[in-house]
Amino acid sequence: MIQVLLVHESCLLRSALAALIRAEPDIDVTASSWRDARSRARSLQPHVCVVDTDFAGSDGPCRKGELKKIVSAASGEHGDCGLLVLASAGRPGPLRRAHEAQALGYIDMNAPPQRLLDGIRHVARKERFVDDSLGYGFLQAAEIPLTQRELGVLSLAADGASIAEIARTLHLSNGTIRNYLAAITRKTGARNRVDAIRISHAEGWV
Amino acid sequence: MIQVLLVHESCLLRSALAALIRAEPDIDVTASSWRDARSRARSLQPHVCVVDTDFAGSDGPCRKGELKKIVSAASGEHGDCGLLVLASAGRPGPLRRAHEAQALGYIDMNAPPQRLLDGIRHVARKERFVDDSLGYGFLQAAEIPLTQRELGVLSLAADGASIAEIARTLHLSNGTIRNYLAAITRKTGARNRVDAIRISHAEGWV
Repeated sequence: MIQVLLVHESCLLRSALAALIRAEPDIDVTASSWRDARSRARSLQPHVCVVDTDFAGSDGPCRKGELKKIVSAASGEHGDCGLLVLASAGRPGPLRRAHEAQALGYIDMNAPPQRLLDGIRHVARKERFVDDSLGYGFLQAAEIPLTQRELGVLSLAADGASIAEIARTLHLSNGTIRNYLAAITRKTGARNRVDAIRISHAEGWV
Repeated sequence: MIQVLLVHESCLLRSALAALIRAEPDIDVTASSWRDARSRARSLQPHVCVVDTDFAGSDGPCRKGELKKIVSAASGEHGDCGLLVLASAGRPGPLRRAHEAQALGYIDMNAPPQRLLDGIRHVARKERFVDDSLGYGFLQAAEIPLTQRELGVLSLAADGASIAEIARTLHLSNGTIRNYLAAITRKTGARNRVDAIRISHAEGWV
């Protein structure tokens, strides 16, 4: 019996996905919000973690290292837990974070349900499983044009921080932050700083 | 038998929700993407449309009047189709748009699945059905602090348009747009223009 921990922020949607998975004779599933995911992973020790990467809240996959922490909490005596992510083709940021967390499986949110069930069985056998339709998203993920430092500056700017506030937070001068923001605008092909933030949100970079 | 049209952008999630609904003996369901929703509504003539309001794409509920158009396409010979929306408590914008489209039912995305099934049955009988947990969201929806004109300016700014571009689009002077943006920043309690855009995205206003 394959034990699955399913992480999705919406109770309605994770219940629906769990019912779909539970109908299979060889898979058992427990559903969790992002906030409870690590403690559920620790107590359940599932073979596979299925996580929705589109949630942008403070508990979710955007928090640095959160995906890795859940997989690590889920991996115990019986060995490693495999990570299977639900992702969207147009959002390379979540794909990159999933890759950094060494996800084995990648299911397109637009795939039919059978793909999810197949993906769970592959990942439970430690086999890679990637939806073809995510291929272009992976290409984009490999090509995020900004450095980690630039992503950090952009993320603070997107939160509404002023140049002076960003400079204070990162212990840099105002002029340096201005240079970073100019480079970010240029490298993203944006019209201005607000446009750079819009592009980075749409692509899921920050 | 209650006929339901379910509109959700993700094939995986709408299939899971549809399976959950279809397991009920008295409800039949057809699932659709946003793009196909109107034509499906027209051919199916469902008693209830269940729509996810969180999708922000160009086919979706953010497009002016789209919710109303789907309900109108679904309402035919047998009478009016009832609208039931899936909504998040923290996003007053979609709640307001659903209210404008005269939705009868409002289900919290964080509710257990039984609420959705109860909601469908109530709306099929033309009865109002509102999740208590959305109450605060409704209060916020009534209190969006910006005028339609200010929302229009903010929406263009959020798309990355410069002051000159916004002015040209709306046939106003640069100074007038600057005044609007200052008013928007003040009324939203934002630190600056980027912060005002962040707040309005988070609340689902634009």
